[in-house]
Amino acid sequence: MVPSPFRSLHHLGIAVPSLEEARPLYERLEGVSGSLPEELPDQGVRVLFVGSVELLEPLGEDTPVGRFLRRRGPGLHHVAWAVEELAATLRVLEKEGFRLIDREPRRGAGGHRVAFIHPESTGGTLVELVEAPRSLPEP
Amino acid sequence: MVPSPFRSLHHLGIAVPSLEEARPLYERLEGVSGSLPEELPDQGVRVLFVGSVELLEPLGEDTPVGRFLRRRGPGLHHVAWAVEELAATLRVLEKEGFRLIDREPRRGAGGHRVAFIHPESTGGTLVELVEAPRSLPEP
Repeated sequence: MVPSPFRSLHHLGIAVPSLEEARPLYERLEGVSGSLPEELPDQGVRVLFVGSVELLEPLGEDTPVGRFLRRRGPGLHHVAWAVEELAATLRVLEKEGFRLIDREPRRGAGGHRVAFIHPESTGGTLVELVEAPRSLPEP
Repeated sequence: MVPSPFRSLHHLGIAVPSLEEARPLYERLEGVSGSLPEELPDQGVRVLFVGSVELLEPLGEDTPVGRFLRRRGPGLHHVAWAVEELAATLRVLEKEGFRLIDREPRRGAGGHRVAFIHPESTGGTLVELVEAPRSLPEP
C-alpha cells in the first residue's frame, strides 16, 4: 500500500429537515446527548453533533443541503475522514486527479479546518476531510 | 439520557456498481487493504470491507442494492451501529415503535448477526445493527 495521509472515519453527515426533530433518534443510537446547534452561514446549514453523527438542517431551500433534501429526501449526506495535514493532502489529491470542491481548507463545524471532495471523483459519495492533529482526541 | 444498548458506529455501507473498480479509492481513504469479497446471496450482494467501509455490489438488478443504484446512483447506502445483545435490542426497539426490516437477527457479512431498521422510522437512513460483544476487537 502507498502510505496514506488519511486516518479514520471522523463523522457521518445526515441531512434532516429539522435538527430538533431528528435529535432524539440519534441520541438513542449513539447513546450520548447532542451538542448545541451551530450555524454555518457560508455552507447554508445549521448543524449539531451526536457522537459520530453530524445532523445538517438547511438554512433555506436554495442551499446545498436544501437541494439535497428536495432531490433525495432526508438521509446520509456525506462521510468525513480525519487527516493530519489538510492543505498538503489537498495538493496531493489534486495532483492525483481528484475533483476538489475546496482547493484550500475552510472553516467547518467546531472551528475545524475542512474541505470537500466532489462525489464525481469518489464514485458517488460526498467526502469531507477534517484536519485533526493526531495528538488531539477525536470527537 | 436513557441508557442505550448501542455503542459505536460499526461500519458504513456504500453501494457501488463494481467492488473491484471502487476498491482502490477506499483503500486510499482508509489507508488499509480491502478484504476478500464475500457473497451474501440472501441479501443479493457481494461485499468487501476496507477498514470501516463496506462496499456493496448487487448480484442483480432486482435486488435491494440493484434497485438503490438504479434509483439513486452509487453512494452512501446504510450505516451500522454495534450492539451487544441484538435479539433483546430488537424487542426493545419494536416496543418503542421502530419499524424493523428484520425482527430477528440474521447472518450478515463475516458471520456477524445483523438486523436492519426501516428508513421510515429513522428519518430516512437505513440503519443496520451488528452484534459485536464488547470483549471482541472491532473491525
